Amino acid sequence: MALIVQKFGGTSVSSTERIKNVARRVARWKAQGHDIIVVPSAMSGETNRLIGLAKEISSSPDPRELDVIASTGEQVTIALLAMALHEAGLKAKSYTGAQVRVLTDSTFTKARILQIDDKRIREDLGEGNVVVVAGFQGADERGNITTLGRGGSDTSAVALAAALKADECQIYTDVDGVYTTDPRVVPEARKLDTITFEEMLEMASLGSKVLQIRSVEFAGKYKVKLRVLSSFQDEGEGTLITVEENKQMEQPIISGIAFNRDEAKLTVLGVPDRPGIAYQILGPIAEANIDVDMIIQNVGHDGTTDFSFTVNRGDFNKALMVLETVKGHVGAREIVGDNKTCKVSAVGVGMRSHPGVASQMFRTLAGEGINIQMISTSEIKISVVIDEKYLELAVRVLHKTFGLDQAA
Amino acid sequence: MALIVQKFGGTSVSSTERIKNVARRVARWKAQGHDIIVVPSAMSGETNRLIGLAKEISSSPDPRELDVIASTGEQVTIALLAMALHEAGLKAKSYTGAQVRVLTDSTFTKARILQIDDKRIREDLGEGNVVVVAGFQGADERGNITTLGRGGSDTSAVALAAALKADECQIYTDVDGVYTTDPRVVPEARKLDTITFEEMLEMASLGSKVLQIRSVEFAGKYKVKLRVLSSFQDEGEGTLITVEENKQMEQPIISGIAFNRDEAKLTVLGVPDRPGIAYQILGPIAEANIDVDMIIQNVGHDGTTDFSFTVNRGDFNKALMVLETVKGHVGAREIVGDNKTCKVSAVGVGMRSHPGVASQMFRTLAGEGINIQMISTSEIKISVVIDEKYLELAVRVLHKTFGLDQAA
Repeated sequence: MALIVQKFGGTSVSSTERIKNVARRVARWKAQGHDIIVVPSAMSGETNRLIGLAKEISSSPDPRELDVIASTGEQVTIALLAMALHEAGLKAKSYTGAQVRVLTDSTFTKARILQIDDKRIREDLGEGNVVVVAGFQGADERGNITTLGRGGSDTSAVALAAALKADECQIYTDVDGVYTTDPRVVPEARKLDTITFEEMLEMASLGSKVLQIRSVEFAGKYKVKLRVLSSFQDEGEGTLITVEENKQMEQPIISGIAFNRDEAKLTVLGVPDRPGIAYQILGPIAEANIDVDMIIQNVGHDGTTDFSFTVNRGDFNKALMVLETVKGHVGAREIVGDNKTCKVSAVGVGMRSHPGVASQMFRTLAGEGINIQMISTSEIKISVVIDEKYLELAVRVLHKTFGLDQAA
Repeated sequence: MALIVQKFGGTSVSSTERIKNVARRVARWKAQGHDIIVVPSAMSGETNRLIGLAKEISSSPDPRELDVIASTGEQVTIALLAMALHEAGLKAKSYTGAQVRVLTDSTFTKARILQIDDKRIREDLGEGNVVVVAGFQGADERGNITTLGRGGSDTSAVALAAALKADECQIYTDVDGVYTTDPRVVPEARKLDTITFEEMLEMASLGSKVLQIRSVEFAGKYKVKLRVLSSFQDEGEGTLITVEENKQMEQPIISGIAFNRDEAKLTVLGVPDRPGIAYQILGPIAEANIDVDMIIQNVGHDGTTDFSFTVNRGDFNKALMVLETVKGHVGAREIVGDNKTCKVSAVGVGMRSHPGVASQMFRTLAGEGINIQMISTSEIKISVVIDEKYLELAVRVLHKTFGLDQAA
């Protein structure tokens, strides 16, 4: 008998029919003798509807009040799911974040979880209940309702699993696991049985939007066993996200190829190569609320250097405008940009002990005539920025060259 | 400077535009220097939508979970209204019932308010906030969310006014006050400036659905000054519901003519005139969840008596079936019923000191050839059941005979 936290996303609970399906699935786990805590999201579209109402009232609604309204989405689902569990013959009780309580700081709309009181949940589990806890929400010390920000239900589930020392935290999504790359781009993509937290973090931040990054960090930190499963298929083990590296003798060097179509590149040419220049450029970008992804500065020559970074494509024009305003101030020669780019990354803990991965990647891309515009590496990831028209080709050849299309 | 509780019903907050109107109206009161607590209902239709979702899951949803979902309707409105108040330039904070907290018993879906903690509300008022409190809801001792049942927002508002010793509790509705009768039936109907709690209770229970009965009882008990106003008209003093009788020299005998179209009559003929017979008849009716309105049993003769009562027209067939099953058991001769009836009542505290009211009422109806089928009286009310086709005629002539069409 295990204690399992199961998180179901918005599409899994998008109708009362689907909520009944979730209840049946939970009932099967319960029938195997497990204790179950279920964390549902709001019905898909509901959070947007609620925020849309707020926007009709105010273009910049008060964050405290925004959380009061946004949190009702999950509150509706927990009650419906508890009722559906009753219909499935189970004992079940629902709790809002405030009721649990999930104590957070007071950063409305993107609060951080500080502590979870497990008393009532343990009591209810002890009495044979399935406990249904609203994801995405909590309450601060004064009892104000808070939300954790988009995708926060994943974080709620992991935090509950950590607080209750659950044996496993299962995240049910509309995919049946984490793949070596997007199957829509590479039909030979394979589902991974396991992936490390570090790899998952790189995959997630690179656009494989299976899990919210924060929840993965959280799970890694508190050593919560995290599993991604399909909410629409009854079979399958999904993908287990582990703390430890794969113990197989023939460990794969690369676990997956991630990519992001939504990348735009900006370069400040000929800036003086002196301390503080990066801040003078990126400070105004951050103030304009533009998220920066890759940042690259090469060694300078003749006292000047070139400074490049990438942003979301939607922020490209805004970023260009900001750079034009700082251009004179930082003494740059020219601003150039390209929003027809994309990012492709090879991710794998195995590359730590295999120094040849980068050169293999570059050789493969060169073999297809794909010019690399920017390179950025971490310990377990190599990312390149290339012309967007090569995205599919690059992902396919890299997937093949690292043997990801062959069963492990 | 006064402390005023203002309750706005579902139609007053049925859209974000109307919520903005409510905010503007509150702002005008606030500008006069008053402290304001606003109690909004859910947007009209929202509670039904939420309960509809629950019914899709279960034909008899768990009451605890039903309250979790139903309470979200008001939670959405308080946040939207607080945002609208901010837009109107005011400081405002919203609270759910649980946050206040409005402590109730644990009778889910029809909980009773036990106590209200006024600490946070007083603090916020002291800091210049308009405080927005969700109507219809509270939390029990264990923190479970409860609701007060349909129309419970009126009760919430009155209870808050009582707890905070507010100077006035204003109920904003889609009518501009309490009328001598329904203006759609009698165009000469006049708005009453004042009405006593007792009269209001009789008027409300007789179908003038301006205020929820429970809230009127509550207001009477705690001596809360209650005023009914239009949420769509800016002018007008509405109707003040007072503890004391009208102090005018020429006190009107009758305050209003109430009626209910929805009345069906059942009679059990020739039952043995012995103790316990009423219970033997009405026990099974109550068990079938049928609300009984008037009950009449006349003196018997020859050892038997006739027993009559009225029910909602929608329950007529069900009630007939129940009576057929108890007919043999109680030894009744026959069951007869009529669902083409209605009830008309004259209400007024003045009749306490004017014994001639009943005979004047009967004479007036007789003068129009209207046969009276049943009569029931209380200290301040005379009700008759008549053929439904005479309803409008009866209301009109009674309204005129008691001088209600003339300015007081």
